Amino acid sequence: MAETNAVFNAEVFGKRNFDALDRIYTANASILPPGAPMISGRAAIKEFWSNLIQSANAKSAVLASVEVMPAGDGVVEIGRATLTVEPEGGAATEIEAKYVVYWRQEDGLWKWHVDIWNENS
Amino acid sequence: MAETNAVFNAEVFGKRNFDALDRIYTANASILPPGAPMISGRAAIKEFWSNLIQSANAKSAVLASVEVMPAGDGVVEIGRATLTVEPEGGAATEIEAKYVVYWRQEDGLWKWHVDIWNENS
Repeated sequence: MAETNAVFNAEVFGKRNFDALDRIYTANASILPPGAPMISGRAAIKEFWSNLIQSANAKSAVLASVEVMPAGDGVVEIGRATLTVEPEGGAATEIEAKYVVYWRQEDGLWKWHVDIWNENS
Repeated sequence: MAETNAVFNAEVFGKRNFDALDRIYTANASILPPGAPMISGRAAIKEFWSNLIQSANAKSAVLASVEVMPAGDGVVEIGRATLTVEPEGGAATEIEAKYVVYWRQEDGLWKWHVDIWNENS
């Protein structure tokens, strides 16, 4: 699980390698982003992150587990996220957020099946 | 579960009966509200809802399950919420939100153990 979270930061945010999201989300995952309706399915999720990271010029998303609760075949995780964005012509800004992820296994990998977050301020 | 969701609307929002939250949240539940850090424990959660409902003059919170996923002893629910607020001197406004709740059983009742939400716009 720590590895999946690290891939999200290093590959998706760091390298803008959006195909790495195949390793992070289940095929029929759902994300519930602030300010938008729920988005379901990995193709639509990849489009969401690609648009968001490029439009915000996001540089990193450091995730830290706060609580990990085994839940049958899955796991419910509460976590903290620190997002760094560098708006054009502006200084780098850190955004503190928190999230809940419902993890499931797919093809032997632990992946995010439900992912919801919001900002702390 | 539908009953718990209905109590949240009818008792907590409708009647401002904040003790009804004892039937809704587990004793050591956590909520993750937008614009604030995580809040843990039922006493602090009751204070949060009491403050929010009174300061926003909230009138109702209608919840609707979108997806219910059995997860071991618990359940992961994705839902939609329609919140109605009546700011002083203003017209009633509806706010569309979405949530993820991790349900657990406590004293034979299904309750919310983790509750996170955000607005759709």
